[in-house]
Amino acid sequence: MRSDGRQTNQTRPVTITTHYNKHAEGSVFIEVGDTKVICTATVEERVPPFMKGQGKGWVTAEYSMLPRATQVRNQREAAKGKLGGRTMEIQRLIGRALRSVVNLEALGERSITLDCDVIQADGGTRTTSITGAFVAMAFAIDKIVKDKNLQKYPINDFMGSISVGVVQDRPCLDLNYEEDSKAKVDMNVVMTGAGKFVEVQGTGEDAPFSRAELDELLALAETGIQSMIREQEAALGPDITERIRRASHAPARS
Amino acid sequence: MRSDGRQTNQTRPVTITTHYNKHAEGSVFIEVGDTKVICTATVEERVPPFMKGQGKGWVTAEYSMLPRATQVRNQREAAKGKLGGRTMEIQRLIGRALRSVVNLEALGERSITLDCDVIQADGGTRTTSITGAFVAMAFAIDKIVKDKNLQKYPINDFMGSISVGVVQDRPCLDLNYEEDSKAKVDMNVVMTGAGKFVEVQGTGEDAPFSRAELDELLALAETGIQSMIREQEAALGPDITERIRRASHAPARS
Amino acid sequence: MRSDGRQTNQTRPVTITTHYNKHAEGSVFIEVGDTKVICTATVEERVPPFMKGQGKGWVTAEYSMLPRATQVRNQREAAKGKLGGRTMEIQRLIGRALRSVVNLEALGERSITLDCDVIQADGGTRTTSITGAFVAMAFAIDKIVKDKNLQKYPINDFMGSISVGVVQDRPCLDLNYEEDSKAKVDMNVVMTGAGKFVEVQGTGEDAPFSRAELDELLALAETGIQSMIREQEAALGPDITERIRRASHAPARS
Amino acid sequence: MRSDGRQTNQTRPVTITTHYNKHAEGSVFIEVGDTKVICTATVEERVPPFMKGQGKGWVTAEYSMLPRATQVRNQREAAKGKLGGRTMEIQRLIGRALRSVVNLEALGERSITLDCDVIQADGGTRTTSITGAFVAMAFAIDKIVKDKNLQKYPINDFMGSISVGVVQDRPCLDLNYEEDSKAKVDMNVVMTGAGKFVEVQGTGEDAPFSRAELDELLALAETGIQSMIREQEAALGPDITERIRRASHAPARS
Amino acid sequence: MRSDGRQTNQTRPVTITTHYNKHAEGSVFIEVGDTKVICTATVEERVPPFMKGQGKGWVTAEYSMLPRATQVRNQREAAKGKLGGRTMEIQRLIGRALRSVVNLEALGERSITLDCDVIQADGGTRTTSITGAFVAMAFAIDKIVKDKNLQKYPINDFMGSISVGVVQDRPCLDLNYEEDSKAKVDMNVVMTGAGKFVEVQGTGEDAPFSRAELDELLALAETGIQSMIREQEAALGPDITERIRRASHAPARS
Amino acid sequence: MRSDGRQTNQTRPVTITTHYNKHAEGSVFIEVGDTKVICTATVEERVPPFMKGQGKGWVTAEYSMLPRATQVRNQREAAKGKLGGRTMEIQRLIGRALRSVVNLEALGERSITLDCDVIQADGGTRTTSITGAFVAMAFAIDKIVKDKNLQKYPINDFMGSISVGVVQDRPCLDLNYEEDSKAKVDMNVVMTGAGKFVEVQGTGEDAPFSRAELDELLALAETGIQSMIREQEAALGPDITERIRRASHAPARS
Repeated sequence: MRSDGRQTNQTRPVTITTHYNKHAEGSVFIEVGDTKVICTATVEERVPPFMKGQGKGWVTAEYSMLPRATQVRNQREAAKGKLGGRTMEIQRLIGRALRSVVNLEALGERSITLDCDVIQADGGTRTTSITGAFVAMAFAIDKIVKDKNLQKYPINDFMGSISVGVVQDRPCLDLNYEEDSKAKVDMNVVMTGAGKFVEVQGTGEDAPFSRAELDELLALAETGIQSMIREQEAALGPDITERIRRASHAPARS
Repeated sequence: MRSDGRQTNQTRPVTITTHYNKHAEGSVFIEVGDTKVICTATVEERVPPFMKGQGKGWVTAEYSMLPRATQVRNQREAAKGKLGGRTMEIQRLIGRALRSVVNLEALGERSITLDCDVIQADGGTRTTSITGAFVAMAFAIDKIVKDKNLQKYPINDFMGSISVGVVQDRPCLDLNYEEDSKAKVDMNVVMTGAGKFVEVQGTGEDAPFSRAELDELLALAETGIQSMIREQEAALGPDITERIRRASHAPARS
Repeated sequence: MRSDGRQTNQTRPVTITTHYNKHAEGSVFIEVGDTKVICTATVEERVPPFMKGQGKGWVTAEYSMLPRATQVRNQREAAKGKLGGRTMEIQRLIGRALRSVVNLEALGERSITLDCDVIQADGGTRTTSITGAFVAMAFAIDKIVKDKNLQKYPINDFMGSISVGVVQDRPCLDLNYEEDSKAKVDMNVVMTGAGKFVEVQGTGEDAPFSRAELDELLALAETGIQSMIREQEAALGPDITERIRRASHAPARS
Repeated sequence: MRSDGRQTNQTRPVTITTHYNKHAEGSVFIEVGDTKVICTATVEERVPPFMKGQGKGWVTAEYSMLPRATQVRNQREAAKGKLGGRTMEIQRLIGRALRSVVNLEALGERSITLDCDVIQADGGTRTTSITGAFVAMAFAIDKIVKDKNLQKYPINDFMGSISVGVVQDRPCLDLNYEEDSKAKVDMNVVMTGAGKFVEVQGTGEDAPFSRAELDELLALAETGIQSMIREQEAALGPDITERIRRASHAPARS
Repeated sequence: MRSDGRQTNQTRPVTITTHYNKHAEGSVFIEVGDTKVICTATVEERVPPFMKGQGKGWVTAEYSMLPRATQVRNQREAAKGKLGGRTMEIQRLIGRALRSVVNLEALGERSITLDCDVIQADGGTRTTSITGAFVAMAFAIDKIVKDKNLQKYPINDFMGSISVGVVQDRPCLDLNYEEDSKAKVDMNVVMTGAGKFVEVQGTGEDAPFSRAELDELLALAETGIQSMIREQEAALGPDITERIRRASHAPARS
Repeated sequence: MRSDGRQTNQTRPVTITTHYNKHAEGSVFIEVGDTKVICTATVEERVPPFMKGQGKGWVTAEYSMLPRATQVRNQREAAKGKLGGRTMEIQRLIGRALRSVVNLEALGERSITLDCDVIQADGGTRTTSITGAFVAMAFAIDKIVKDKNLQKYPINDFMGSISVGVVQDRPCLDLNYEEDSKAKVDMNVVMTGAGKFVEVQGTGEDAPFSRAELDELLALAETGIQSMIREQEAALGPDITERIRRASHAPARS
């Protein structure tokens, strides 16, 4: 049993509040345990300079934590005058994860920016951001499909993310902050609805890990991500879910 | 009648959700119409260098908007690498307003940082931030009073804020974004529970205003701020309200 | 009597030296007591990107203090690598004040930048900058009117500024640095020749102020600004003064 | 066969020139194919503020590419005024990898900075930097052990790194730039001499990858890293190699 | 004859207004032709970190141009967020020139910052700054000598500066902007009262210059600097002049 | 005899390794004693905005030192977020020196950027950079002449650089770091193959220097630069050497 009473293969409770922001083209407020993130999708009818004229769209992400999202207040990056390495690493990760399931040609020459703002942090902020941002993006893209009458649905598959780690020698799913801070191995996994890996980022700074541990962690992650994708489906509703499934030629999950 | 059906002297509905953040010493989520701001108070047992050794505390504020708080997405100031002039002006204003009702000697050599993060903007974000930040600060200071057994209560009085302006030649209270963008005169007022002015900031860039207009606007603001202070009292509850009143030697509001 | 022998309703001596800079399209060196500011107006035949194609002009201002304008040397903002909040607040104020009396349509698609550089500071640097910048701008605009043969005179009215404050419980006009640093209430007022308010910025961080105090301060400010406008008229000479008056349909001041 | 004639499980030729810099406490010039990196280790008898007083040392890394290390010249980050996200991500990775095999208590309160400057880039610059930086660090630490007469040898094990990826549907070892730019899956692996994972970073932005592909890539990476560690041993010479092996209680590699 | 009627070996008229700033420990307003610079000296009873504890003082300089000092307005470096290369080069030059005639041991552990702010530019702003800054510094140091009762006079000698160049194949002294912009060779020279060189900076970007031209330019510069030093003596007055001369054991200039 | 056994008029050994970088249009690795610099030339078929449409080319330079090029590690300018004054001064100098021997009209509307990265520093890094950069640039320009079939050879003459200084009262050629740090006078000279001066930068911060000393230093510099130019000729080979000589109408050096 873990400190919050969960089994090693159990995720924290998940709540996804949709249409959280009245201005954004897509938005959710996602809570995974006490980690809470606002994800908004902004659609713009232009692409960054390096993408111009290729007939393709672009998806990018920005990530930030409110100063007091954490136990101790962090100085704002705007006040410091620069983004930290951790922030840059996370927003690059979120962007890659989202693009892995988007058909940029089908999207057409427009861009979607996903803003992931962490309101409260308790471990797993980057994986929660990815899971939430997918939903916000799906709402926004579904709206584009209707408004612009796109012929091909630009989302290839569902995609979710979770963290796993070795805490007190036990591989565990969905670490909270307390667990994360004493984990010897820490891994973030991003996976599609079809069960393929988009990202595997495992680090054993405090203690290198064996192949056997890696295998156990990946299995836990797969379970957790399937559960996250079921939450995404519930939040998006049956119609959008069906359209994504059809685009991915995937059989309905039972 | 205004576009949203209000009278010229009527504020929008106000909701103050207290203890919104599990880490902060004081926090609220304040909604004034569709303007929504998270205010958190962080207490630190040290003061900035310029205040050291004076036996006095310090109160300061930071203000930010999520990129998609607005109709059109704004670039993050962290990504730009600097705070804009508007942000700096607003956070200086919030800090001055809060300090005007705090007895810094009674607070002792510690500092309180109020973070005001606008989740959704629909006019009046700076005045809503001030009104909400007062409540978050009061929770934090009341906790210090208990934890540190302070002899003198460090809050002198209630303090709230509202915007007023001249819209289509009519002085109006608590402008929403649509009204604000067509107002010829725009004024933000900060006032104490005792009805004294802390800040009066009126600007008539598009059309200078007469003394008569100024008088009407100030009267509207006074009404609005009294209403905001009643919301603050309800959010803080009778005990803290009583302690602030006693410190200000003010008679109870009926 | 005040520390420098003035009455409470008396301004310091004012000197405006015109055509102070041989390169600028308009320039003055303004001295109000020991506060000394160089104001230059630069005309450019283009507008900022956000104004393009609207057939309107733009007026903006920048403000800076030489490092040793003050009793203690201040680090240069260029060396710090960023503008401080106070600087940004002041240059936004100067810009708004100037634009309030300029007909941007009549000016045509060109921009005027007013640089206000404080050579020596002794209180009231922002109000002195506004008063001086108006004169530099008027010279520059009058030159444009001639050079480009404009049909409509783009200046609507005179506009000046002064500070007022409550010093040792007495409302006083045009505070010097010593007075300013012990004032409990500090207010900057910008007013047109027709006696309408452009900006009212009063702050009572150290002590909130009553409505009666506000009224007294506004009355003092009005007197002071009328006196500043008479100095502006003298500096600009009868011809330009006449052209501005005619454009504002204002009767000649006696 | 690959475009440069290698087998899929074959690394490029490796050359490690030791003592490349006359000032640094440890330094190498490492060449893996046409990728060339200068790695220098700087020892300082102090630790960063967040590590002070813990009796432990610190190891950190910085990474940079000369502007013309690449086919097209890149603007210097010093000229841009900030480090890019890719640079930050890489230097964080190098630092974690190095710390994973250093006993910071045994090192004592001193810090080692590894500078990895890419002179010429042809794929695998981050993994080559890690492999080279280990050797430079080992020289520097071995020198500290002698100079300061440390009782416990602070290096726990060898550690090397290599990239793997799926190129034209074939898992390949040690990608060059041409291969890397068309790889659908790209993975960087860091492993200890004992065959444990320090970092696994796989990304399938262009095409998610299956568990079977992941397994093949990890097997290739293990082979490649063992080969890199043999090059490190040769560069460090038998004495330092023996001391590291003894510290890791590892049997001699045959 | 030159475009402004001067002989090739003639400087422009020089005016040095002393005690120009009421706050600074030393200050002048120097005009050389239409080039006008305010130089202020600030004394602080501390030295920069790298000088601490050596019992020596420090002299440094900062240089800036008002945006409209030039024919076309220049963007402020504070607004750009960084100092340009030209500015840095000039302020390093001014600092070295001033330190060359100051006995830093005799000055004691205190620092003097010379701010050179160009009000109007017409060629020779860096040499005019050096000549003016010497006078401001001498007033400040003379004051320190009295206030702190220093035993040894810390100024070794007079020091002045001028520009020379080859304009239309004729070596000329003290170029104005028009001449400077068409000069093929441009040289700035700093020299002591004793006739020794402190700095010689000649550049022939547009046309390399011969040894004969170099010799002619150096001779012109010597004449010009002697004339500048006479102006410095007149501005400082006979007492300070006498104290500097005595410290340099130099015979009185006739 | 000097500390490293050289005569006062003797340079350190020079090695120029050509074609050091496989990507750059021209590149050398130059070693002057223990000072080692990589110089690469990048050709781009466009010019900076301020040069557009004039039918002329542009040559510019950037300079940087690896953090551990020096005895004590220097913080990276990219990490500091800005270029230092010394760096800016040096890169401006290198750029001017290179442009002095390039016919920008003959080069045509394209630009060449010379990157000078100091791998190891032991005095004379700026002069070594200039000498090496000339060779890298000559390779790049010679390639342009062939590829674009230019009619007029764009290099006017050879150009090299060396430092001289007064060490222990003796004028010396080509100072190493130890000598440089105790030199009272320090001078960098840039000269063409025809023996004309491009830059003379002498500074006597610690002790002003006489005209006689200046003359001795210039004579030493001339000898040293002739020797550097012979090394450049050897590195470029007889064909390119001949083409440059022919362009400069200079007789062959015996």
